[in-house]
Amino acid sequence: MSGPLRLGIAGLGTVGGGVVELLGARGADIARLSGRPVEIVAVSARDAQRDRGFDISGFAWFDDPVAMARDADIDVFVELIGGEEGSARDAVAAALDRGLDVVTANKALLAVHGAEFARKAEASGAMLSFEAAIAGGIPVVKAIRESLAGNAVNRVYGILNGTCNYILSKMEEEGREFADVLAEAQQLGYAEADPSFDIGGYDAAHKLALLTSLAFGTEVNFEAVYVEGIEGVTSADITAAADLGYRIRLLGVAQSTESGIEARVHPTLVPRGSAIAEITGVFNAVIVEGDFVGEVMLVGRGAGAGPTASSVAADIIDIARGTRVPPFGREASSLKPYVRARMRAHEGGYFTRMMVYDRPGTMAAIARRMADQNISIESIVQRTRDASTKAAPAHAAPPAPVTLITHETTEAAMRAALEAIAADGHTAGPPQMIRIEPT
Amino acid sequence: MSGPLRLGIAGLGTVGGGVVELLGARGADIARLSGRPVEIVAVSARDAQRDRGFDISGFAWFDDPVAMARDADIDVFVELIGGEEGSARDAVAAALDRGLDVVTANKALLAVHGAEFARKAEASGAMLSFEAAIAGGIPVVKAIRESLAGNAVNRVYGILNGTCNYILSKMEEEGREFADVLAEAQQLGYAEADPSFDIGGYDAAHKLALLTSLAFGTEVNFEAVYVEGIEGVTSADITAAADLGYRIRLLGVAQSTESGIEARVHPTLVPRGSAIAEITGVFNAVIVEGDFVGEVMLVGRGAGAGPTASSVAADIIDIARGTRVPPFGREASSLKPYVRARMRAHEGGYFTRMMVYDRPGTMAAIARRMADQNISIESIVQRTRDASTKAAPAHAAPPAPVTLITHETTEAAMRAALEAIAADGHTAGPPQMIRIEPT
Repeated sequence: MSGPLRLGIAGLGTVGGGVVELLGARGADIARLSGRPVEIVAVSARDAQRDRGFDISGFAWFDDPVAMARDADIDVFVELIGGEEGSARDAVAAALDRGLDVVTANKALLAVHGAEFARKAEASGAMLSFEAAIAGGIPVVKAIRESLAGNAVNRVYGILNGTCNYILSKMEEEGREFADVLAEAQQLGYAEADPSFDIGGYDAAHKLALLTSLAFGTEVNFEAVYVEGIEGVTSADITAAADLGYRIRLLGVAQSTESGIEARVHPTLVPRGSAIAEITGVFNAVIVEGDFVGEVMLVGRGAGAGPTASSVAADIIDIARGTRVPPFGREASSLKPYVRARMRAHEGGYFTRMMVYDRPGTMAAIARRMADQNISIESIVQRTRDASTKAAPAHAAPPAPVTLITHETTEAAMRAALEAIAADGHTAGPPQMIRIEPT
Repeated sequence: MSGPLRLGIAGLGTVGGGVVELLGARGADIARLSGRPVEIVAVSARDAQRDRGFDISGFAWFDDPVAMARDADIDVFVELIGGEEGSARDAVAAALDRGLDVVTANKALLAVHGAEFARKAEASGAMLSFEAAIAGGIPVVKAIRESLAGNAVNRVYGILNGTCNYILSKMEEEGREFADVLAEAQQLGYAEADPSFDIGGYDAAHKLALLTSLAFGTEVNFEAVYVEGIEGVTSADITAAADLGYRIRLLGVAQSTESGIEARVHPTLVPRGSAIAEITGVFNAVIVEGDFVGEVMLVGRGAGAGPTASSVAADIIDIARGTRVPPFGREASSLKPYVRARMRAHEGGYFTRMMVYDRPGTMAAIARRMADQNISIESIVQRTRDASTKAAPAHAAPPAPVTLITHETTEAAMRAALEAIAADGHTAGPPQMIRIEPT
């Protein structure tokens, strides 16, 4: 048995506390699995005095994580501070420059600076491990980087944000509106006080940027991810989608196309009964499609102290065992440049819902605008208004919902058709448009 | 880039052919990921002349895989012959004794000789890798051995045999009987000409024996696995289970109990809507419950050339990258002795279905026998016979089905109650008994 692996942990919040607890509870087993003891020797956080429910007096204390990265007598720098800039960035850079192995749960940091950090790690011979950065306790980094490495990946997609999945699940189950469910989720601690990062799709986009690099061997490119959040999804959309056999999920999807890689986060219609549609509540799921393996799905808890600590521990045990794999599975110099497919070229089916004035020629005009763009319609649902409104003159009647599902078309064609329909003046407000993902 | 990793492949059937195809199609990428070329240099199979659809003239040919293991100029021996004895066993032993790394898809071999081979591998410093041996393309070995290594596992369970899952799914969907669906599965190639190994549960038991060792750090013990196949499951059982909100699946379950490890393969009632109940057709699924991560589920294709080759390739790439992990995650000498929990001590709910003569006091007698064993009943369904039979005298009426679901009890109590009920003579034929697994 070799000497102990010495850890410095930066950040003692929820995740940091979980890691300290796990290493305490499972230390003897981890030493057995690793062939050597794994010991926390230094920690850094904002406040040395705060009661965290565990004793830090045995660890060297650093007020400044960058100082810990530079000076502590450690083998591994565990970054659990969070944030794409500031001390997390500076400390990880310092640790990698010094040749320390780095374990991080920081998706934002790697989504933005992953390519640069991969080069730094390679230059100094350090590991840069981030299992906890994507989908919490789900071992998706190792699955793509190692277990499925024999495959060419065609597509990787999944539910990458538990807050959004919780909100969409609740909206469907209880027929409630977005704002109402969000407020409840905030009370229950499933959504942040400022939820925009989650519900706007940015958290999922950070994770998707990393998944994309792992799956396609490209440089990390967060800027290239198309992002739409769930703020605009209404209870009426969910009901209309259900009528047609679909559920709405916030998906992150990265796929290889003829014109490049399409990476996108947006509300998505998925067929009821498909595996991804059955993932409810705060769970995350990732599906990888490889040319030899076919479809592999991984499901688990995407956040929380325990699941995240589990993934941080896995990275630490790998390092203790002597496993050395480049952060994105291949040398930084052999990562391919990211060629971005235009969102306008996206091909797929679409769901659209619009409030239509009941006037002669309206449906014909809508159908004509679709036909002008060569869009063929798979199904159409027009809600009949009840008898009392029907009796009123048509021009005084409130608009009624029309829901359409299209066959495969392009984003450009769909947007042009909906703009033309809106300009025709037959609809009240802009049409809703949600993409459909084949599963 | 180091020198090439030289492979010898023993067995060129479906899986061997898939591995040759994958290494051919993906060779350049695999070299990039591995940091070195991976080359097949020797092969062994029964017939050198057979047309396999690929060219083997560039590889050294061995009629005898044991000779290849002993003499070929290779780094890795890839065993795809199958079978727990004979040339597969001898060749793997010879390869490990010589210090060659071994990659195998052979669940039977490792379930029976895994402990011995782990010691051999350790003695010679060889890797013994078997991702393809459990659940085909699903990366469950690496998930438990590496990704979830920070957790104490409470339970691991899953659908480990695609043939059984296909048959049970079809029986449910189409209301058909076992023999009928089995015959069709054989015609379609989803079941072997001699299907007893699959439908009897032995294939799943081999995989479960390996999962148990990985999850609990114990010596492999195939003999300790309790095995029941699906031959006795009837369409009536499936319908009765559905009435009560359940599906029937062949599960392999290993769990830690106070008296030891319970490892069992049997038909199981799982609640409809649970993730495992939604796995239909030939798919496999494995769920791991860890103390920190919670529940992680992995789903994918459990058999076939492509998925199995994907897992074999993953093991080869690991070796090429220099990753060294003991076969069951820890030194062979630190594997714990297997302490077997008696099946009679199993605790859980039970489903039972019996054909009952409609006589006064019958239901009271059944309820009494259950109460005598302290078994409390969660639900009971007695099918009313139709009016025409109802009109006949009770003693001439055919027996009618009674279905019971119990609250948690023990296997010993349940067996005693059912024996007593059968002995009372109120039932036609022995009662059916199927365990319920909480999910």
